[in-house]
Amino acid sequence: MIKTPYLLFLGDAPDSLAAKVAQGIRDWRPDNAIGQFRMEGCKADMGLPDMTLAEAKAAGAQTLVIGVANRGGVISPLWKKVLVAALEEGFDLASGLHNLLRDEPELVAVAEACGRALHDVRIPEVKYPIANGEKRSGKRCLAVGTDCSVGKMYTALAMDKVMKARGLKSSFCATGQTGILITGKGIPLDAVVADFMAGAVEWLTPDNDPDHWDMIEGQGSLFHVSYSGVTMALIHGGQPDALILSHEPTRTHMRGLPGHALPTLEQLRDTALPLARVANPACEVVGISVNTAALPEDAALACLAEIEARMGLPAVDPFRQGAERLVDALAAL
Amino acid sequence: MIKTPYLLFLGDAPDSLAAKVAQGIRDWRPDNAIGQFRMEGCKADMGLPDMTLAEAKAAGAQTLVIGVANRGGVISPLWKKVLVAALEEGFDLASGLHNLLRDEPELVAVAEACGRALHDVRIPEVKYPIANGEKRSGKRCLAVGTDCSVGKMYTALAMDKVMKARGLKSSFCATGQTGILITGKGIPLDAVVADFMAGAVEWLTPDNDPDHWDMIEGQGSLFHVSYSGVTMALIHGGQPDALILSHEPTRTHMRGLPGHALPTLEQLRDTALPLARVANPACEVVGISVNTAALPEDAALACLAEIEARMGLPAVDPFRQGAERLVDALAAL
Repeated sequence: MIKTPYLLFLGDAPDSLAAKVAQGIRDWRPDNAIGQFRMEGCKADMGLPDMTLAEAKAAGAQTLVIGVANRGGVISPLWKKVLVAALEEGFDLASGLHNLLRDEPELVAVAEACGRALHDVRIPEVKYPIANGEKRSGKRCLAVGTDCSVGKMYTALAMDKVMKARGLKSSFCATGQTGILITGKGIPLDAVVADFMAGAVEWLTPDNDPDHWDMIEGQGSLFHVSYSGVTMALIHGGQPDALILSHEPTRTHMRGLPGHALPTLEQLRDTALPLARVANPACEVVGISVNTAALPEDAALACLAEIEARMGLPAVDPFRQGAERLVDALAAL
Repeated sequence: MIKTPYLLFLGDAPDSLAAKVAQGIRDWRPDNAIGQFRMEGCKADMGLPDMTLAEAKAAGAQTLVIGVANRGGVISPLWKKVLVAALEEGFDLASGLHNLLRDEPELVAVAEACGRALHDVRIPEVKYPIANGEKRSGKRCLAVGTDCSVGKMYTALAMDKVMKARGLKSSFCATGQTGILITGKGIPLDAVVADFMAGAVEWLTPDNDPDHWDMIEGQGSLFHVSYSGVTMALIHGGQPDALILSHEPTRTHMRGLPGHALPTLEQLRDTALPLARVANPACEVVGISVNTAALPEDAALACLAEIEARMGLPAVDPFRQGAERLVDALAAL
């Protein structure tokens, strides 16, 4: 559990795209983002107050979150100076970088001396149990994709936001680095040891109120041979009551796997639903989330209408249209 | 890669059942088992020559393999004396125990001083790649089960033995602790980090001669919620050309999951085959391996006949009947 609120470290980001993590926090948990810290030459701007470490500390920030991807996989000496100063100022550090904070002896030494925590959210911090498959109280929703990176996290965050706005009980449950940094907790599922994957998902989504929904962040795809095992563990550990099918209509092959065609939404439904019912016989597919970012408005709406008619389920781009109709479908279950 | 041949350490095993690993090595790789080392009070006997460490060394043994489960998860002081002496005698040590050799400071120190290796086969020794899904040359066969522990390893070993006896090209590819100790190599799949599971299986079963078969050891079950992700990674990383369905007909619920019914063989076929075809469109289900150990001969044969008629595929108990007909089915592909 990472202490909130955050000061978002944008470093020397060459553009806003490099600061995707910071953007996610600002968009989905604005209360967690007190300000931004930009170094000289930084080209990213989250529209948050620029703060020094001392100003952010005074404003109540607890953790400096590295909200930017580093170049070449190395924590530069320029960054390190700021990170050390932040520890000395009383901040914890949190990072989803490939190269770990804990592998930097200087940061480890200062953190220890100052009694501060270093959170590398790529590494599990918990010893997860083996899944026991027992039915848990409360409800769970999971987005499963025809491919990786088709908008499953965005869908879950958007649905969670609508649920909360309607006064319904909902939690977004992060299963990847960005999701964990956005919410301050979760499981880095792709870094969990095989035997404990499903157990980690059970741990993440425990018993809850009967009318509470866990909106579980999806990972990978049953049709992506590199990561399908992770998806399978999410489906069985999450024992979802509701599945959302997620799709990106312009993709020509599975991400990173040229020559591997995408499945149809029908194939995805017919594969994922029976598998989900192994863990929860009551599971239903309730809607479809389509990432139409690559299409102009007209084509996007036509695509959504075609899918909706074909599949007999609400088909929505949560970014263009909001997730209202997907939440309606959940509520109708 | 563990150096062969072995001296099998049976310790103070209370019975032969406790020495299952040693039994597996003797049954499936007798050339790897030069002799057995038994301590006072040992009640297990593999029928191999009893040897002192010096005798086994002189006979060419390279590794002392712990072929027995330890009680209470602790390496006893009595055992440790033998293990230290073995290192000093020039043996490597190999173990599939839950408590690791590498966590015993005394063993680590002596191994280092003597230049010997400690193999804990529960822990990956290789940095596996992420799976790339590219089609590999050669053929692969994988057993998938209605449940865990239904005889998938036994089936693969029995088929590999028949293949070799017929002069066909075949390799048994171990994916679990016992299989690794039997053959001296493999991947401890359930201990691999999620993102690298399928890649580990690809690494294990690389390009080979067009007429060579990898007989891949199965793990878990698509229908076992605790381990289904591991099975999924095997199916996609292994890109099998042939699936064997494995079943235990007397089991009343999924292993360790009371209340979870087993799927039918039809459900297993209809779930596993489409998933396998994501990685290899040419994949076929070729036969069924039934573990009838809990049935008397008459009932076993009746059960096999019923399954064979129902499924339209050869149904065989490889332990009672040998794996000849399963290999025939492979050859007919």
